[in-house]
Amino acid sequence: MACDWLIHNALVLTLEPGSRPLPGGYVAVQGGRIAAVGRADVPGDLPAAQENLDARGALVLPGLVNTHCHAPMVWFRGLADDLPLQQWLTEFIFPAELGWLDPDKVYWGTLLAAAEMIRGGITTVGDSYFFAAEARRALAEAGLRAVVAQGVVDFPAPGVPDPALNLQVAEDFLNTGANFGSRVTSAVFCHAPYTCGPETLQKAKDLTRARGVPYFIHLAETRQEVVDLEARTGLSPAAYLDRLGVQDELTVVVHGVWLTPADGEILARRCVKLCHCPESNLKLAAGVAPIPELLEQGVIVGLGTDGAASNNNLDLWGEMSLTARLHKVWGRDPTLLPAPRVVAMATRDGAAVLGLGRATGVLAPGMAADLIVVALDRPHLTPLYDPYSHLVYTARAADVQHVMVAGRWLLSEGRFTTLDWPALAARARSLSRDLSACCRRLRPGA
Amino acid sequence: MACDWLIHNALVLTLEPGSRPLPGGYVAVQGGRIAAVGRADVPGDLPAAQENLDARGALVLPGLVNTHCHAPMVWFRGLADDLPLQQWLTEFIFPAELGWLDPDKVYWGTLLAAAEMIRGGITTVGDSYFFAAEARRALAEAGLRAVVAQGVVDFPAPGVPDPALNLQVAEDFLNTGANFGSRVTSAVFCHAPYTCGPETLQKAKDLTRARGVPYFIHLAETRQEVVDLEARTGLSPAAYLDRLGVQDELTVVVHGVWLTPADGEILARRCVKLCHCPESNLKLAAGVAPIPELLEQGVIVGLGTDGAASNNNLDLWGEMSLTARLHKVWGRDPTLLPAPRVVAMATRDGAAVLGLGRATGVLAPGMAADLIVVALDRPHLTPLYDPYSHLVYTARAADVQHVMVAGRWLLSEGRFTTLDWPALAARARSLSRDLSACCRRLRPGA
Repeated sequence: MACDWLIHNALVLTLEPGSRPLPGGYVAVQGGRIAAVGRADVPGDLPAAQENLDARGALVLPGLVNTHCHAPMVWFRGLADDLPLQQWLTEFIFPAELGWLDPDKVYWGTLLAAAEMIRGGITTVGDSYFFAAEARRALAEAGLRAVVAQGVVDFPAPGVPDPALNLQVAEDFLNTGANFGSRVTSAVFCHAPYTCGPETLQKAKDLTRARGVPYFIHLAETRQEVVDLEARTGLSPAAYLDRLGVQDELTVVVHGVWLTPADGEILARRCVKLCHCPESNLKLAAGVAPIPELLEQGVIVGLGTDGAASNNNLDLWGEMSLTARLHKVWGRDPTLLPAPRVVAMATRDGAAVLGLGRATGVLAPGMAADLIVVALDRPHLTPLYDPYSHLVYTARAADVQHVMVAGRWLLSEGRFTTLDWPALAARARSLSRDLSACCRRLRPGA
Repeated sequence: MACDWLIHNALVLTLEPGSRPLPGGYVAVQGGRIAAVGRADVPGDLPAAQENLDARGALVLPGLVNTHCHAPMVWFRGLADDLPLQQWLTEFIFPAELGWLDPDKVYWGTLLAAAEMIRGGITTVGDSYFFAAEARRALAEAGLRAVVAQGVVDFPAPGVPDPALNLQVAEDFLNTGANFGSRVTSAVFCHAPYTCGPETLQKAKDLTRARGVPYFIHLAETRQEVVDLEARTGLSPAAYLDRLGVQDELTVVVHGVWLTPADGEILARRCVKLCHCPESNLKLAAGVAPIPELLEQGVIVGLGTDGAASNNNLDLWGEMSLTARLHKVWGRDPTLLPAPRVVAMATRDGAAVLGLGRATGVLAPGMAADLIVVALDRPHLTPLYDPYSHLVYTARAADVQHVMVAGRWLLSEGRFTTLDWPALAARARSLSRDLSACCRRLRPGA
């Protein structure tokens, strides 16, 4: 029987551990999954297919996995930059979140974020924010694979004015997730140990543990929060979460900039995963996470863009380039984080971080057909000696030509197939004018 | 009289000090220079023109200035990465340079590099390498503005097998430069204080001083070279060059990673300029240059990509993003190097670094018509509150739609007008196969 799609004539990177690039490679897709991957030395070797994509001169690899994002914060991209953290948060971000956001803006903002992510070859996103049901609806419509987490904090938040109801809102969110099937799943995001009390952290974990879904938490992003936590509890970040019993293989800590080696040991022992967001960490002057050390300890690390308010883009190519470079200079060793390791972080390991390691992140029979086709016939990608080197140090979002999720094209020849970009752009112009006006009302002296 | 070209309906950033963005802005071009820049509140305000470009919804700003590049090294892009510096140099780069490069490969490599730079909105490049006459010819054909410097080292180099002739080769290069006019000028590049003896450094400066052209030199790139220099001379890098009398307003030091505050004072006093190449510095684990401190001391700093062997791209958008982020985390202060400062480094200040501050780098009447048009109607550039923020933190090379140098379009709607990309790509494939074969001959055990 013929498969649905055959992508052939490509240089294929399967990202399976130990695999080598496949020149003249193909990927056969059937029913949303990968039916076969291989190398066709003669045309007759190719499986029969109803539709063909000749990817001659291009790379095919698993779609990128953005393990940490706050998609609706795309509205705040460039609203204010280069400010001290507290001023940025209290004068711009918090007022805009509490005084302007509503479910409709979260929905449209998530569609806008989805457009940027699809254009840049992201096929799976772990998204954490408020009004998460609207983000989930938008990501489902956009066609992305997603783990969407409802935010929990112990103070008033967008859509949760009464913090006493924060866990109830999260539970309701999980309860309404069944309709989305396996492509878009639901989870909980406890914002941080300094915004959620111990009881909230524990009850949220009870909720996610009972349902077998991920539990996200910002941890050790700034030095000050670690100092404060230790003053309050006598414990380092991972030791504190361990005392609360909230760390297991479905716990995902984000940032981890100020984790100690002892913290890393705890994370590794509990099989906790980590999201590394270096562009955000640098822009906010948070610091540099000890990624080579955490990897050495056996912690699985994925890459994340963080939200556009603090990055200001949702582009994993920049995160790959920065990850590979930053840790070399920080560790004074140019051999740290070589390119193939970083590509794995952005694909296979990212999938594992989100609990999707058996579903996506590598090209192998039975896995979801989540893949991207990257053009190579461009000046900055010429000559080509090593595709991993190009992916990390040279390729950029605009080099992505085609994006497939679960066997469905979301981007074809650089054009969106699930999103109406002109309509989305018009909506974005209107809503961003509205936000500007709202900011002037909220900060009349500015 | 009607001007040659009118670019209108744009958001114009002139980059003149203290200027504000001009919505509904226009740039009029006549005879290769800017005739007028302004804001048309009604259509009748616009100058008459023979040809018009409606840049509605786009940004127009001065073209980017790449202050430090080794264009022909594009052949070694990704040939070897993530290695210890000495192994990378001695096993890959030096053998490839001495065993494979020739004038023809320098010419074609420079064209390939020019394609990448034009595609990414670079209009001016300071290029330093060997066989510099071939690079000069290629950059002139490509239509870029360039300061091309012949390399000088006290050991055998590509095209200069006898180091006793290194200054003669440089002088011959300067002597043959007059035909290229003011758009492509000639200079000298002393590789570094550890590869050029004091007499060479001084004689090269005599040569450039007599002709009023720039003198480039790598300085304080690695910690080891600074330690070695101090052991040998008792002096820090800038103090050493000062003792030799080679520092003046046309001296351009590159990297400056390990400069001390006392070095910075010397550079500022001598009006020496600095090229900052952060992507290369990180990838080679060289370190982080003290840029905020040097700026504070009054040193003019431009951005550079360095060569593609050590970067691995010739993309100033990545350098801008990294510059703005890196120094925030390094200095633990998120207000360091705000976006407008970084855009100035990539344009106006870069021009000043190359001694071209009166010719290019800002959009003002009488300046060269070197400008770029950057698309804004894209998901990652939506919404737009602050164009400087977008240029630094979000925009990428592929957002450049049009590139003009000296009144001539080099890129139009993303297409090259001076370069034949298919022919160049075919030549690149052939030459890179040849280099791969040569590397296997040179390193048969690998």
